[in-house]
Amino acid sequence: MKVDGKPYRTIWLGTDGTTVQVIDQTLLPHRFVVRDLRTMEDAERAIRTMIVRGAPLIGATAAYGMALAMATDPSDAMLARAYSALLASRPTAVNLRWALDDLRARLSALPPGDRREAAYRRAAEICDEDVEICRRIGEHGLAEIKRLKPRGERLNALTHCNAGWLATVDWGTALAPIYQAHNSGIPIHVWVDETRPRNQGASLTAWELGKHGVPHTVIADNAGGHLMQRGKVDFCIVGTDRTTRRGDVCNKIGTYLKALAAHDNGVPFYVGLPYPSIDWTIEDGHRDIPIEERSAEELSRLSGRGESGEVLSIDILPEGSPAANPAFDVTPARLVTALITERGACAASESGLLSLYPEQARAA
Amino acid sequence: MKVDGKPYRTIWLGTDGTTVQVIDQTLLPHRFVVRDLRTMEDAERAIRTMIVRGAPLIGATAAYGMALAMATDPSDAMLARAYSALLASRPTAVNLRWALDDLRARLSALPPGDRREAAYRRAAEICDEDVEICRRIGEHGLAEIKRLKPRGERLNALTHCNAGWLATVDWGTALAPIYQAHNSGIPIHVWVDETRPRNQGASLTAWELGKHGVPHTVIADNAGGHLMQRGKVDFCIVGTDRTTRRGDVCNKIGTYLKALAAHDNGVPFYVGLPYPSIDWTIEDGHRDIPIEERSAEELSRLSGRGESGEVLSIDILPEGSPAANPAFDVTPARLVTALITERGACAASESGLLSLYPEQARAA
Repeated sequence: MKVDGKPYRTIWLGTDGTTVQVIDQTLLPHRFVVRDLRTMEDAERAIRTMIVRGAPLIGATAAYGMALAMATDPSDAMLARAYSALLASRPTAVNLRWALDDLRARLSALPPGDRREAAYRRAAEICDEDVEICRRIGEHGLAEIKRLKPRGERLNALTHCNAGWLATVDWGTALAPIYQAHNSGIPIHVWVDETRPRNQGASLTAWELGKHGVPHTVIADNAGGHLMQRGKVDFCIVGTDRTTRRGDVCNKIGTYLKALAAHDNGVPFYVGLPYPSIDWTIEDGHRDIPIEERSAEELSRLSGRGESGEVLSIDILPEGSPAANPAFDVTPARLVTALITERGACAASESGLLSLYPEQARAA
Repeated sequence: MKVDGKPYRTIWLGTDGTTVQVIDQTLLPHRFVVRDLRTMEDAERAIRTMIVRGAPLIGATAAYGMALAMATDPSDAMLARAYSALLASRPTAVNLRWALDDLRARLSALPPGDRREAAYRRAAEICDEDVEICRRIGEHGLAEIKRLKPRGERLNALTHCNAGWLATVDWGTALAPIYQAHNSGIPIHVWVDETRPRNQGASLTAWELGKHGVPHTVIADNAGGHLMQRGKVDFCIVGTDRTTRRGDVCNKIGTYLKALAAHDNGVPFYVGLPYPSIDWTIEDGHRDIPIEERSAEELSRLSGRGESGEVLSIDILPEGSPAANPAFDVTPARLVTALITERGACAASESGLLSLYPEQARAA
């Protein structure tokens, strides 16, 4: 999407044909900085420190991480080492494993001398495929949300965290329908959950919507239920890090609370997702998905602009008060109105998902 | 309760017999500063800028504000002016009106020469009454929560915002049962919601629990639902700014989301409240309670300790992104397990409340 009028993706190949470039998302919304990834370790660090984040972008960065590894050393040993290092960088993201499995399978079948070129080509394909997947999620989502209000009336969306183009290669998942509505002249406004503790809503979603010109208002994570009670939200739409075979949705901590409020107020709750984020091997999200516990410092330390515009960090907790920081929660399928994938919208259930992905049906 | 071993209230009369002293809650948890209120305007400003906050403490400060007004000028004109100015300082708090109505009725019946002494005496009584009310809420709440787990097993509470001793004159409302459990040797741990946008949980509840020695862990407002899903919360307990005749609870924004999660997971959801926060004149919280919309700056600006310990403010939103800040929400009575008042625990319903306050029954 656009930044100051210029089209961008979140990850691209530099002009030297080896270096990979990404937008440093840890500095947004205060500074717009492009980072060079020159080694597999750079890619691993970019994922681990959340310079890049969002399931599809993590997958794309991991794919380029494999390419950077092959550019250094195309041996079997390096292939194994890069796979392990990149896989360990974020335990919850299923796209990460999907991209790494794909690259490893293709590369290990090739002689070492062919691996570098094949890895870069496949990483670029993964990026292009992601853009196309997101564009289709946008089309299918737009068809759903257009039905909610008479033509010409403003639609009010609520979203949590960042599942916009910054979380993918372009378009986004949850925000793709919103960009398509806006681009096609449908009046739309987005309530943006701040999304503590890392503030991805306040810092990333607000930034990208603002840069593209989409009307939006940032709210505390606490406010969404009240806005739904008062009829100010026409639909919720979020992304997902992992969706189970039965439609349970593992997404940023706090998603479950918004889904409860949507259900209590009859507000449709949509989840935008690309097929790699469906984990067909698991059924029950509560039982089967381990929840990443992240550093307490994410809660206690915040960064922002000081009085003269410099980026500062502050501590907000009393000295000596501990903090806990579970990073994701699981929204049970019963609270989800529809899953919106690149193949269409379906019920959040095994039969709903299998109606779109019949090839995943198990042998009887 | 205690601060560094020394017992405190949140408001008290200075040794000169005129000046009122309060803890400046806007500087907590980073600095512990006592402020002098020397005029009615000082009291009005202390309420408006949230140097004092919490429904019972606002009521007590307003009562002392009337006393400060009478110390300056005990005329009918000043009585009317002080009443209006103090009433306008926080529109939602029902205790404010209750305290002001009480003082105005008593003082207007007296000759001006007797008003100063009467006002100070009544303000002190209101403080002592509040301490006794909170102590009793603690006793009744303790009886409820003791039943939840076998003796000796740790109880895990979750609370939102600050309804501790800092919100009252002493003990607190929601936290009174927790202090009583802790003081009587029952192992108890508190999950403390950060409570964006003003962070009263992270800055006040965590501070007062820590200073009194109660084990606690600060969490993002987003985390409570997940903790309840995983069985890590035995009960929720919150305060209230206003409770309707039918038991709807108006409290800090985000309370409703926690009540939904508690209901969805079978976790008891208690509300601790003193009788002045019951508004017998209204029934339906959604229809009848106006929700204060506070400054967007509360969301965009945060203060905390910088690297060398100084208190700094930062801006966290992208430049140009608007924010909205509804300060309260309404939790419908159907989500509340019990209301805990100074007279005992009851169902969150008109009949429940009337069982404790039969004098409020309407003539047939």
